[in-house]
Amino acid sequence: MSKSKAYVSSVGMTPIADHWDYSILDLAVQAARGALKGSTIKKPDQIIVGNMFSAVGAKQEHLGAMVATALGLTGTPAYKVEAACSSGGTAFNVGYNLVRSGAIDSALVVGVEKMRDLEPEDISAALAMAESAEYTQFVGATFAALNGLLARYYMEQMDVSRDELSSIPVIDHANAVTAEHAQFRKAITPEVVGRSAMIADPLRLFDCAPVGDGAAAVLLVNDNAASGSRRRMAEVLEGRIATNDFSLYEREDMLDFKSTRLAFKKAMEQAGLAPSKLSMVELHDAFSVVGALSLEAMGFSKRGHGSKDAKAGKYSRGSDLPINTFGGLKARGHPVGATGVYQIAEAYLQLTDRAGKNQVEGAEYAVTQNVGGVDTTAAVHVFGRAA
Amino acid sequence: MSKSKAYVSSVGMTPIADHWDYSILDLAVQAARGALKGSTIKKPDQIIVGNMFSAVGAKQEHLGAMVATALGLTGTPAYKVEAACSSGGTAFNVGYNLVRSGAIDSALVVGVEKMRDLEPEDISAALAMAESAEYTQFVGATFAALNGLLARYYMEQMDVSRDELSSIPVIDHANAVTAEHAQFRKAITPEVVGRSAMIADPLRLFDCAPVGDGAAAVLLVNDNAASGSRRRMAEVLEGRIATNDFSLYEREDMLDFKSTRLAFKKAMEQAGLAPSKLSMVELHDAFSVVGALSLEAMGFSKRGHGSKDAKAGKYSRGSDLPINTFGGLKARGHPVGATGVYQIAEAYLQLTDRAGKNQVEGAEYAVTQNVGGVDTTAAVHVFGRAA
Repeated sequence: MSKSKAYVSSVGMTPIADHWDYSILDLAVQAARGALKGSTIKKPDQIIVGNMFSAVGAKQEHLGAMVATALGLTGTPAYKVEAACSSGGTAFNVGYNLVRSGAIDSALVVGVEKMRDLEPEDISAALAMAESAEYTQFVGATFAALNGLLARYYMEQMDVSRDELSSIPVIDHANAVTAEHAQFRKAITPEVVGRSAMIADPLRLFDCAPVGDGAAAVLLVNDNAASGSRRRMAEVLEGRIATNDFSLYEREDMLDFKSTRLAFKKAMEQAGLAPSKLSMVELHDAFSVVGALSLEAMGFSKRGHGSKDAKAGKYSRGSDLPINTFGGLKARGHPVGATGVYQIAEAYLQLTDRAGKNQVEGAEYAVTQNVGGVDTTAAVHVFGRAA
Repeated sequence: MSKSKAYVSSVGMTPIADHWDYSILDLAVQAARGALKGSTIKKPDQIIVGNMFSAVGAKQEHLGAMVATALGLTGTPAYKVEAACSSGGTAFNVGYNLVRSGAIDSALVVGVEKMRDLEPEDISAALAMAESAEYTQFVGATFAALNGLLARYYMEQMDVSRDELSSIPVIDHANAVTAEHAQFRKAITPEVVGRSAMIADPLRLFDCAPVGDGAAAVLLVNDNAASGSRRRMAEVLEGRIATNDFSLYEREDMLDFKSTRLAFKKAMEQAGLAPSKLSMVELHDAFSVVGALSLEAMGFSKRGHGSKDAKAGKYSRGSDLPINTFGGLKARGHPVGATGVYQIAEAYLQLTDRAGKNQVEGAEYAVTQNVGGVDTTAAVHVFGRAA
């Protein structure tokens, strides 16, 4: 790999909401225009769309070329990258590798998902495609059910209480109150989580990321494209994808989030950064238990202590390592194929002092962790302030 | 971009057929194992799956991680690339750029599609996702209907006869007779095409690529990974993706296959190769008219002369520029997301003298052209014998 550096030079995003008035293309274009507006680059070398299930959510494939045409960029190479709920982070990783290696000089990465046009049971079926159709789906396990089983096992094995499990959703909601693009901007208490409707025992409504529509876009550039000042850019120090055994039932240790562990370890090693240097983490907490196990896989908490540490205040705003500074998947929202790009846009806002009321003072380094399936694929990226 | 070269070091493929006994995963794994078996590399740096509509064809997404686990390669970065019917060629292009630039040293690219598990009307709906859901699909135009309109316009504007239009399918079927992986290994005459059942006037059954299941895989390596002799490899000289205005109705000139034209021009220029040097072309003839317009967009035939030249023998076996040496989309078959990888595997077989009865004697340079939508996305790659 050549020595060029890679930067996120600008970002755009839509609020996450029930966007009845916008199509999947409308959302993607709004976010993309936002990212292009903030940059001197009006014609990126490639357009890479991260999306999981437009085929069922919008009866649409071929989003890459569709977005290119809608942006007036006909001719530009464009395609979609899919890795279930880690589609956004994975699309970014492809762009990052292409830009950093000098294969191309710039890439517009757009994450988008339109979930709300589906009936609830069809959303469940769509999400279940992250796991095996021939085994897991066939026996009737929804994606929430798998995470429910995992949560039950985690709580029993690690002696985790209901209130401890509730602590990550509570942090998310607290952070989302001042986040303009967040889906649910209301603080909650552990009691609210613990008394909310049961979804998949022991997971309750407030343990689970909501359904919503949204798009986020980031412009990736290398030194060839990044003319002038980099002061208002975030540098991509490293990024890795890794995979775990595909289905939960195939794993020796369900509580070891191996793909997150591998991707984080390699990314930090390559970045040459000690975890203690990190100022913040954008975490893939599609379910409260997934957030806890992710914190453990990255080594921020000891095994079994992810939720416990969160309850003790280790990851709250004002702590040394705040998580999900704009609300995370639970409160900012989780339009699945877009989520990974929202996380990266949020890290960019923090590292360029654009985070407004959600600013982490003096944020120097950030990690984003985006997961597909139950930690089946993980895309982990490390960012710093551009020199 | 660094100076490393990229090679296809081995390939694997399944026959294209109605594979009732195999799942989409089975097919992908068979092809992938074939490619890995032929190589000293047992653990590629990445696995990239080209696929268009597994979400509707197999109720399955997240194919990347699924294939990685099934191959015993858990941990390996893996994801899916989608660009409608050009998904295979586009997945290869991503891998090529990553490997050539040195971002990674090897990539296993697997194209796969399972179409036959769907009812015919659902296959039509799935293919229609290559075009706009909100406009084209809504007014009821199937993908075949769009190509029918295009064929009518082409025949009238360019004074193309029924027999001339039939000439590319006739070449395809002649070449497929001796191709072991081809779906239809039977020679046909122009009369057979012209009398076959009407599909979308003026296109008849034998103008249209068939429905089938299949998977093809190629292993991409650069100089770091390609230890020892390269004698039995094909070098990837260049590869480009380009896009056209998304929908047919948006274009100033429907008969100008702009994405193919741009991708081919840039790829050949970057490869430094004159078109006259080419020994063969693997052409995306999903419909006879698409084959003709593709030959014109790449400049092999003058405007309006693609089918006419084919009828005159310009592209037959034994000519200076044979097309579709294993039967093309019409007779080898067209499992949509896999097709681009089949084409590349076929170019590899020719350039390494492994094409058996279909060998083009002394083949030195080959082009593959893979299209998504009606030339909405094109992925064009140029190959040569490895030095």
